Amino acid sequence: MKVPVWNPAVEFLEREALERLQLANLRKTVAWALKTPFYRRRLAEVGLHRPEDIASLRDLRDIPYTTKEDLRESYPRGLLAVDLEQVVRLHTSSGTTGMPTVIHHTQADLDAWTELVARCIVATGASRRDVFQNMTNYGLFTGGLGLHYGAERVGMLVIPASSGNTSRQVQLMRHFQTSVVHATPSYLLHLHSALMDEDTDTSPPSLRKAFIGAEPHSEETRRKIETLFEIEAYNSYGLSEMNGPGVAFECLYKTGLHLWEDAYLLEVIDPDSLRPCAEEETGEIVLTTLQRQATPLLRYRTRDLSHLVGGHCPCGRSHRRLARIKGRSDDMLIVNGVNVFPSQIEEALMKAPEVGTNYLIQVEKRGALDRLAVKTEVHAALFAGDARVLSDLRERIAERIRAAVLVKPSIELHEPGSLPVSEGKARRVLDLRPAF
Amino acid sequence: MKVPVWNPAVEFLEREALERLQLANLRKTVAWALKTPFYRRRLAEVGLHRPEDIASLRDLRDIPYTTKEDLRESYPRGLLAVDLEQVVRLHTSSGTTGMPTVIHHTQADLDAWTELVARCIVATGASRRDVFQNMTNYGLFTGGLGLHYGAERVGMLVIPASSGNTSRQVQLMRHFQTSVVHATPSYLLHLHSALMDEDTDTSPPSLRKAFIGAEPHSEETRRKIETLFEIEAYNSYGLSEMNGPGVAFECLYKTGLHLWEDAYLLEVIDPDSLRPCAEEETGEIVLTTLQRQATPLLRYRTRDLSHLVGGHCPCGRSHRRLARIKGRSDDMLIVNGVNVFPSQIEEALMKAPEVGTNYLIQVEKRGALDRLAVKTEVHAALFAGDARVLSDLRERIAERIRAAVLVKPSIELHEPGSLPVSEGKARRVLDLRPAF
Ligand SMILES: [Zn+2]
Ligand SMILES: [Zn+2]
Repeated sequence: MKVPVWNPAVEFLEREALERLQLANLRKTVAWALKTPFYRRRLAEVGLHRPEDIASLRDLRDIPYTTKEDLRESYPRGLLAVDLEQVVRLHTSSGTTGMPTVIHHTQADLDAWTELVARCIVATGASRRDVFQNMTNYGLFTGGLGLHYGAERVGMLVIPASSGNTSRQVQLMRHFQTSVVHATPSYLLHLHSALMDEDTDTSPPSLRKAFIGAEPHSEETRRKIETLFEIEAYNSYGLSEMNGPGVAFECLYKTGLHLWEDAYLLEVIDPDSLRPCAEEETGEIVLTTLQRQATPLLRYRTRDLSHLVGGHCPCGRSHRRLARIKGRSDDMLIVNGVNVFPSQIEEALMKAPEVGTNYLIQVEKRGALDRLAVKTEVHAALFAGDARVLSDLRERIAERIRAAVLVKPSIELHEPGSLPVSEGKARRVLDLRPAF
Repeated sequence: MKVPVWNPAVEFLEREALERLQLANLRKTVAWALKTPFYRRRLAEVGLHRPEDIASLRDLRDIPYTTKEDLRESYPRGLLAVDLEQVVRLHTSSGTTGMPTVIHHTQADLDAWTELVARCIVATGASRRDVFQNMTNYGLFTGGLGLHYGAERVGMLVIPASSGNTSRQVQLMRHFQTSVVHATPSYLLHLHSALMDEDTDTSPPSLRKAFIGAEPHSEETRRKIETLFEIEAYNSYGLSEMNGPGVAFECLYKTGLHLWEDAYLLEVIDPDSLRPCAEEETGEIVLTTLQRQATPLLRYRTRDLSHLVGGHCPCGRSHRRLARIKGRSDDMLIVNGVNVFPSQIEEALMKAPEVGTNYLIQVEKRGALDRLAVKTEVHAALFAGDARVLSDLRERIAERIRAAVLVKPSIELHEPGSLPVSEGKARRVLDLRPAF
């Protein structure tokens, strides 16, 4: 089979040539960064005054990290490295969890972003012959305009449906034979129920692919979407600080998300010790922009957790792959020295059919040790029957979670409605250990 | 003063050269149209089989009109004149007043549309040095993406704010020194109240211009926006069947809306007799696309009412000007042979400070003649005082309406709350004449 590819010259670039390109782009990026007072000061502190001071990619390690707080403190002007007149777009985060952040773009920045998204789209096998219905919000949210520009570059027939209005989404899909959609995984599940409520009771036969992103989700959820719609679903990774979508995307083979390494210099680090992680070892993704003029970011700590996938992808692309995002470093618990992500516990829990949707993760100190407890609601009928059924279930769930996070929790089973109703993931985690 | 202009070669083209260009573009358009079964059949009926059959612009008169119903009946495939693979975008109307309509675009179509919007923006004196906050809805609605692409082409700093979330709009304006906004007139009035509710009690000093469109409004409303914000407001005209915005726009001099005649062939006709209107005579705008490949439309009856403005604009552009849109031909009343637009009555009414916002327009037969009555609510205090005050007010309002629509109505004044609460303009007009 011929592998579909947008930019073979770059996507199949041999590793050595790719790293040479990265070095050249890193020097350019340092030159842009040095135009901002923030980076001039910060780089001077480590003796970096000129782009030529970067002799090899290894020298990256001398550059200090940039954090979300740095970005927030620079609001609203941002870490702007060009004249304001050269800026043609800005996006801001919603600022729901603190001050918003802002990213400025030159026309060249937008062109480069669009090129990256076009690569992502074509890597999944989608092409200009597809009808692409973009079901994510347009405007300041980067997902909508990001995919829109990429799809237009590819030459797909773009239906800028934007988010919401499910009955109209369904009409558009049916009337225009939509073959590819872009949406959050939760919206696709909602859309499927809406389709099933219709008289026709089938999903549109033209649909072939979905691009899913913008919210953390499990492999279970992806499989569910694929089965319900009888389509292929591809994971998309991006974050507003790195333009938005177009950072990493799954190819046809779904062996992990290829990260475009000519545009982003990738590191995975332990969020506590800051030491580099080995392949397959989970840590925080750290990214350096390599093509962005208006808002260069050096060693930006994304807080997103993942690991590098080893080996080679059958597609032949030289750009390395990230595993699906496991959560955010903010969410990570350290239990007896082991990194535990609530999302992994959730995923393991949800595999048991007896388990409802409500649960609570609790960590407390017992003497010198941490104790992990998972409380979850299960079907009411279980409490009426044999007590051994319950203890077997407890053991099965505990074992499943141990396999996922390497810590065996104690399991408490509760009747439906007895746990507090939680809103959002944060509320499901209770860390009762004393803070030193 | 130097007149700001985006494309001087086309915008200042001498009339004769402009008409030669129109003829060449009309022939191309007929060639595109002949690729659709709809136009092939319709043009064959008038003996038009080849683009060369168009010898001069006069031959346009032989071409049948295209109506909104024609477009609706062609849904969802539309009057598509190119292979689907060449289509990169489609927009549909919301279909709130019947079946939706669909317009397809090739990449060349999008480029041409963007060029027209760029001309509009620059004609108002806005430039790449401006910060442009686009407060209209993105997605299928053409106003958002239309202005977005044009502003990006000009090189403005585009903030894709989209519609709604007023407190965030205000924040963005203040934080990024927004100098130009695009919004509906009613949203700008709402935004101003929100600004006044703030502690600061001033509108952002950086703001210089507003582009207003997408809903009919009076000159009073424009002046109100200009006074409240201390800015210049420019009228924008467009309709989804003609791409969206970018059809006609006011220049710095605000002497009417220049319609880009290399892109649209303009006629103004009497909606009943279909004869061409003279300059300054109000009629229905009929447009023929001159550059659109994917969805060519010949003599499209827009239902929008306006008139051609006579004389020359001081800016020197050769493209003729439309007066502000007066309403839709669907709304037009014929009273004793005179065309009367409810919007003109509304405008005249609202100039009297004693008048509330609720009114009713009624036409009935009295013998051989039509009788126009306008019922309106006025301040309650008026009914407690001298009866002559009321009769003077009646006469003043009647005279004002006569000056506007050339028919003198009888006026009934009512206490607040006594007229039925109306929703939308249509409900304010009651035509009680027998339909023959
Ligand atoms: Zn691959
Ligand atoms: Zn002018």
